Amino acid sequence: MPFNSDRRRFVSNLTGGLVTWAILQPAARAATSAEPRVNAGRLQSTLEDLSTFGRPAGGSFADGVSRVAYSDADVAGRAYVIGLMKAASLDTAIDPAGNIVGRRTGSDRTARPILMGSHIDSVPNGGNFDGDVGSLSAIEVVRTLNEHKITTRHPLEVTIWSNEEGGPFGSAAVAEPVPPERLALIFNGITMRDGLRRIGGDPDRIAQARRPAGSFHCYLELHIEQGGTLERAAIPIGVVDGIVSIDEYTVEVRGFANHAGTTPMGERHDALLAASKLVEAVREIATRTPGRQVGTVGRLQVFPNAPNVVPGLVKLSVEFRDLSADTVARMGNEVAARAKEIAGQTGTEISLERIARDPAALADPKIQAQIEAAAASLDLKTMHLPSGAGHDAQFLAKLGPMGMIFVPSLGGISHSPKELSRWSDCVNGADVLLRTVLRVDRAKL
Amino acid sequence: MPFNSDRRRFVSNLTGGLVTWAILQPAARAATSAEPRVNAGRLQSTLEDLSTFGRPAGGSFADGVSRVAYSDADVAGRAYVIGLMKAASLDTAIDPAGNIVGRRTGSDRTARPILMGSHIDSVPNGGNFDGDVGSLSAIEVVRTLNEHKITTRHPLEVTIWSNEEGGPFGSAAVAEPVPPERLALIFNGITMRDGLRRIGGDPDRIAQARRPAGSFHCYLELHIEQGGTLERAAIPIGVVDGIVSIDEYTVEVRGFANHAGTTPMGERHDALLAASKLVEAVREIATRTPGRQVGTVGRLQVFPNAPNVVPGLVKLSVEFRDLSADTVARMGNEVAARAKEIAGQTGTEISLERIARDPAALADPKIQAQIEAAAASLDLKTMHLPSGAGHDAQFLAKLGPMGMIFVPSLGGISHSPKELSRWSDCVNGADVLLRTVLRVDRAKL
Repeated sequence: MPFNSDRRRFVSNLTGGLVTWAILQPAARAATSAEPRVNAGRLQSTLEDLSTFGRPAGGSFADGVSRVAYSDADVAGRAYVIGLMKAASLDTAIDPAGNIVGRRTGSDRTARPILMGSHIDSVPNGGNFDGDVGSLSAIEVVRTLNEHKITTRHPLEVTIWSNEEGGPFGSAAVAEPVPPERLALIFNGITMRDGLRRIGGDPDRIAQARRPAGSFHCYLELHIEQGGTLERAAIPIGVVDGIVSIDEYTVEVRGFANHAGTTPMGERHDALLAASKLVEAVREIATRTPGRQVGTVGRLQVFPNAPNVVPGLVKLSVEFRDLSADTVARMGNEVAARAKEIAGQTGTEISLERIARDPAALADPKIQAQIEAAAASLDLKTMHLPSGAGHDAQFLAKLGPMGMIFVPSLGGISHSPKELSRWSDCVNGADVLLRTVLRVDRAKL
Repeated sequence: MPFNSDRRRFVSNLTGGLVTWAILQPAARAATSAEPRVNAGRLQSTLEDLSTFGRPAGGSFADGVSRVAYSDADVAGRAYVIGLMKAASLDTAIDPAGNIVGRRTGSDRTARPILMGSHIDSVPNGGNFDGDVGSLSAIEVVRTLNEHKITTRHPLEVTIWSNEEGGPFGSAAVAEPVPPERLALIFNGITMRDGLRRIGGDPDRIAQARRPAGSFHCYLELHIEQGGTLERAAIPIGVVDGIVSIDEYTVEVRGFANHAGTTPMGERHDALLAASKLVEAVREIATRTPGRQVGTVGRLQVFPNAPNVVPGLVKLSVEFRDLSADTVARMGNEVAARAKEIAGQTGTEISLERIARDPAALADPKIQAQIEAAAASLDLKTMHLPSGAGHDAQFLAKLGPMGMIFVPSLGGISHSPKELSRWSDCVNGADVLLRTVLRVDRAKL
């Protein structure tokens, strides 16, 4: 997919739609509202600058990014973002969980802050939109308010959560206790504890990252959809109903490793054969009934993994997602039952352990309505949809009202260098975020 | 599986059969023949000594061995074996392909040599019998002839082939040209070229390792079966009909990596789902018709291999084996056809490339008859069977008459620390090798 990252040519050839937007934009702006809008070129410019931290050597924006938490690229990218936040006059600090928090004073000293943000860490070989769009749009919103000399009633806080892709970590740490054993886990080659220190956090004071429930007015997060629903419907703004429940399992299939040439077919205990049947079972279970539920085997490792050895051990991941926790739990029960059958058929042992359960996090209906109204003021159509991906917002929802704004992902592609959103859609999202901030600032939630 | 490696207690408790053998052996020896026999304790002792080179730190004989070619353990194990060969008065040298060759003069200066041997390199985490039994039995045969002051008509050559598990390499190099690109391949962390130098070979003179067809009287190899056929039949000596044909394929399944939470089931191009169907297809193809043919997927790698990413790429190995090259080719054609169907069903692309074709290598019928007769002279029952595993002997068969003797592998286990053969069975094999040498020395082949 070609991608034009030349800043001098903001009108990209990427799609006809983009060209149309760029031509019509000035007229549309004048027509719809006298309220402020973000600076589109500046937002794009900062996203392009951020993309250089973790860019493959010799690559371009289109080659994506590896800005895995605690890496040198993460450290450098965070320093860049802190610079932007300070330049926007935000009172910026790093909390013990490594979250970057920048505060802007409100007119009402008794009002609780409005939080907005996302994350800037990426998966290995990820894209330049996941997390980055929401993070830099939140800063752009502040810059726009500064330029227009607008002081909100509520204080504002831009929050850049640490290590979202690894858990999430930073946003979880503000909402719930961090188990000490989690700090001992290895992430990207170092312990979480040491990683946290690398980015300015303080694992020994991690409990002080917690925020009390009700301590903020609301939390707003703009994010790319990471799915293809908005693009297929040709709708620029998604209003998120909630973030799905996720159950993750780790599975071990134990067969018996033996020589591929000398072990007759009838005497094999082939762990990979059993694992293959389980991969198919996960798909059957997720597709048996109508609905948006999904089931995935994303990781699978074979031991000893040699062409001439019948596999003796396979480790794999299984995860199920749906807005309904009941559906997610049911799928887990079904896969456990199928694992038992498959073990019997293949002469293997299969153990299944649930290692994570993320409950669904519902977006606040009043905030959903404010997002709709903000989009309507910009003549942007909206649709409601669930988030199939986890987000920092799911942890903030434990503490106060939460709302999420989605913008389209072209081809529904994410966690890939091919991840792409139109600049115009990113700017639309930032404008909706700005107007939602101004609306919730005046609203009782 | 308990394993008694204490040399002072040669009568192991491992099986009732072993105890019986140990008690009956002296009487049986006296009754059957006045011909020489190998020294059982000495053979075991050298096998135990060899097992220390590459033994896991702090482990025992039962913990197996990692004596991967070109490793420090391989270098040290080879030095030990060279010492044994020189002590047995063999005129010992290393050929350019890293093979250790020890010559013993015959009474007829015009007679071509009888070759016997195997290999002492192992797979990672392998056992102490694969290759070692045949290698050290060949040396024990020479020691026994020395003690009995027997000079054969034909010269003898003990041949310890280099890097069998990696190809095989050394035995192949005596039979066919080594492609220069093979020397550039990385094996166990270094190039084959540098590995070869580490063990005293000479990659620049590799062509001089070749031996002309017809340059030896015959090649004999004793080896553990590495399968469970002999043990199940309670037969101590296997007479190998031939080594199966092997076709090895490398398969790439290309789907599309995408976020597991945001990509609906109906829009996935899941490379692992397709690969799983292919794993099942390989088994179906190998088991559809009666016969000894086998089909294996031993290696499978998933990319990017993360729990929350739909797999975009899977690389896997497929291999088929049978004594009939036609059957092997037919199975390859069938898997190619199934791959096409599966690609269509799963929205993936599957490419299949045959990367190796080892033709079947048949054992010489006259040598098979001599092995039978040698075993009969020792009151040892025999059965014929194919070798499902490749061996150095398959390359020697290209140049002259070849025969292989198998001894039972308990549980059919090989390429594992649990690989185990009774000491009594190893000694039986060495005795059959000794008597076969004496018989073929007098025979016209």
